[in-house]
Amino acid sequence: MTRADVQALDREDLFAPLRNAFEIPEGVIYLDGNSLGPMQGATRRHVADVVSQQWGEGLIRSWNTHDWIDLPTKIAGKIEGLIGVPKGTVAVCDSTSINLFKVLAAALHARPSRRVILSERNNFPTDLHIAQGLIDLLADGYELRTVATDELADAINDEVAVVLLTEVNYRTGRRLDMAELTRLAHAGGALTIWDLAHSAGAFKVELAAANVDFAVGCGYKFLNGGPGAPAFAYVAPQHIKDLRQPITGWFGHATPFNFVDDYAPAPSIERMRVGTPPILSLAALDSALDIFDGVDMLALRAKADRLFEIFSSVVVPECPELELVTPLAPNQRGSQIAFRFEEAYAGVQALIAQNVIGDFRTPDIMRFGLTPLYLSHEDVWQAAHVLVKVMRDRLWDQPAYRVRAKVV
Amino acid sequence: MTRADVQALDREDLFAPLRNAFEIPEGVIYLDGNSLGPMQGATRRHVADVVSQQWGEGLIRSWNTHDWIDLPTKIAGKIEGLIGVPKGTVAVCDSTSINLFKVLAAALHARPSRRVILSERNNFPTDLHIAQGLIDLLADGYELRTVATDELADAINDEVAVVLLTEVNYRTGRRLDMAELTRLAHAGGALTIWDLAHSAGAFKVELAAANVDFAVGCGYKFLNGGPGAPAFAYVAPQHIKDLRQPITGWFGHATPFNFVDDYAPAPSIERMRVGTPPILSLAALDSALDIFDGVDMLALRAKADRLFEIFSSVVVPECPELELVTPLAPNQRGSQIAFRFEEAYAGVQALIAQNVIGDFRTPDIMRFGLTPLYLSHEDVWQAAHVLVKVMRDRLWDQPAYRVRAKVV
Repeated sequence: MTRADVQALDREDLFAPLRNAFEIPEGVIYLDGNSLGPMQGATRRHVADVVSQQWGEGLIRSWNTHDWIDLPTKIAGKIEGLIGVPKGTVAVCDSTSINLFKVLAAALHARPSRRVILSERNNFPTDLHIAQGLIDLLADGYELRTVATDELADAINDEVAVVLLTEVNYRTGRRLDMAELTRLAHAGGALTIWDLAHSAGAFKVELAAANVDFAVGCGYKFLNGGPGAPAFAYVAPQHIKDLRQPITGWFGHATPFNFVDDYAPAPSIERMRVGTPPILSLAALDSALDIFDGVDMLALRAKADRLFEIFSSVVVPECPELELVTPLAPNQRGSQIAFRFEEAYAGVQALIAQNVIGDFRTPDIMRFGLTPLYLSHEDVWQAAHVLVKVMRDRLWDQPAYRVRAKVV
Repeated sequence: MTRADVQALDREDLFAPLRNAFEIPEGVIYLDGNSLGPMQGATRRHVADVVSQQWGEGLIRSWNTHDWIDLPTKIAGKIEGLIGVPKGTVAVCDSTSINLFKVLAAALHARPSRRVILSERNNFPTDLHIAQGLIDLLADGYELRTVATDELADAINDEVAVVLLTEVNYRTGRRLDMAELTRLAHAGGALTIWDLAHSAGAFKVELAAANVDFAVGCGYKFLNGGPGAPAFAYVAPQHIKDLRQPITGWFGHATPFNFVDDYAPAPSIERMRVGTPPILSLAALDSALDIFDGVDMLALRAKADRLFEIFSSVVVPECPELELVTPLAPNQRGSQIAFRFEEAYAGVQALIAQNVIGDFRTPDIMRFGLTPLYLSHEDVWQAAHVLVKVMRDRLWDQPAYRVRAKVV
């Protein structure tokens, strides 16, 4: 594929006008939107307005006059549309880890006779860590059982209370069959929790159609909500009424402003809330999500698939040292492309020095987010050629690129 | 006291120059900084810079180049100085409620043979709610026992694992004797958790001198960190090494970027962290705290006491309908003044209509925050006279003022 070919694709690209909504530094090709989505101009302006007008001028009155109290619910409505669930089933609050703690405790409570949390080895660490911490706290014979991906189906048995999985693996980009694994879990009498960190905003997610029980997800990757943006949690409608989530703070109370001593959970999904909502961070996420208004997620994904083809078709034939670890079948992968390379860290540093920002994941993964809202076909073609040059000319082979930063 | 008298006090006020750091709307007298501290110009500018430069330009690289990863630790250092504790004992993360869940679980784990959490009736609701949720989760015979304030000392016995108290009551402003109650708790073999929501930033807090075991606090009241600002947690040095907090996310891991399956807590206070830190909200809090640099907290409190005297000396003689519920002895109160009045809600609405912003707390409390960083003596004198006028002319007695807003 030539530069002219990808330029032709860009001319027909329905998403091309959206690129201007993002303020990405001149000259940078940003393939790390699956770690931290970039900033939009509207988000920058909205945060400034919330700080100076809503907080600065409105002060405490803005809880009512700017409806801060319902801001999490407003944002939840935008996320519900992206993950295929009905209104009133998503709460926006806290971090992905904390929301996982809440839904995992609730799921175990709903399966009292079972003691196993089944997950995958090499699941995103915080998901496993949260399960371990909850198990230690409960001290009641619970077990976190992790198996290889391909052993998951066989590992579902009548000991399993909850199957806890991340749909798209953060290293390889492999996407699990959510509907089938959920079906198997239910057939085995277990509940499911899906982590949508690399799913929401990346492609059309259909939680309700897959009968998923609980899900959690992240606001700062494909949703572009800003560094450390608030996270979300989904609870299927049939589980809300009896949901027992254990971190029972005043904002999850049925009547928080009656200030009563006894906790009574809100009858709705709002019982997932805990403390006072972080308005500034929520404001960024609220604004960031508007870009999805009217976006056809199937068309978005079709473009992501073309970006994958462009990147792989340039890199794979030219770079035998790079082992493609992302599945080729589109329905088996998320919206990234990842390679194994012994000097992956230095390779990513060399790329960044060339203004192509990708990501390293220990010990040996280079990963690149494919985000059609702000990447052109030519961006991805160009980035692939820079990677080819980095490999061919061994640009990664400089001592400076091996000095690990704090955050890798 | 005449207007000339308070103007004379303002001319000698060491804190007068700090008032200009805050961008409070013209004409407003803001007596609600104990609900939501006001915005500083430096904070507005810093948040704008973090959004546009650090996120917008720096993108993912800012985790290293702007040291986002250590931002919570940097902020913790500023808070440590305000609450009288050594370096490395405060974590800045999550909400007050969630931090309370963590330290309460850790405290119960450290007193395995005891089953009672002792607290006060009419403690701030979320503190009691969090204890109730944790007890339900543990399902191991735990009990939340609440007594009247004056019964606390007698209620400490060998069943009590943890004494959980808020230093300053959110309604009355009554301040408990932290050192004495902590001494009694320890004498009875219990640990203590103190909620500093209405203490940190309001006066000199001396946690270490009082031998407090754990504390939690709020970033958005007297610390002025913005609506829903991140909260903090203190763990006494001797408890950190063996601290078992149950929400074990990747940012509390000893080596988060090794991405290993097994959780191993950070050896430091950072094990209190859970998920990815909310950078935008943290940035506001970070900047807001700089105003305390060089502030003599004893002098700050001395001014707050003068503000209390001014307000009470104007209001109490003129308004027999208002029952002062805040203790007169300075060491028995926080930095607010509160009155009981049957039509307190309408009264506060009438005041707000006169540009004096105070706070209502159900069912019948009018409370006013006394915050010397940005309130002049004349502000408080003037506000007191407006309250006198509201009461004398029954300005509260209009149907419109009784229509409750969502957030009260």
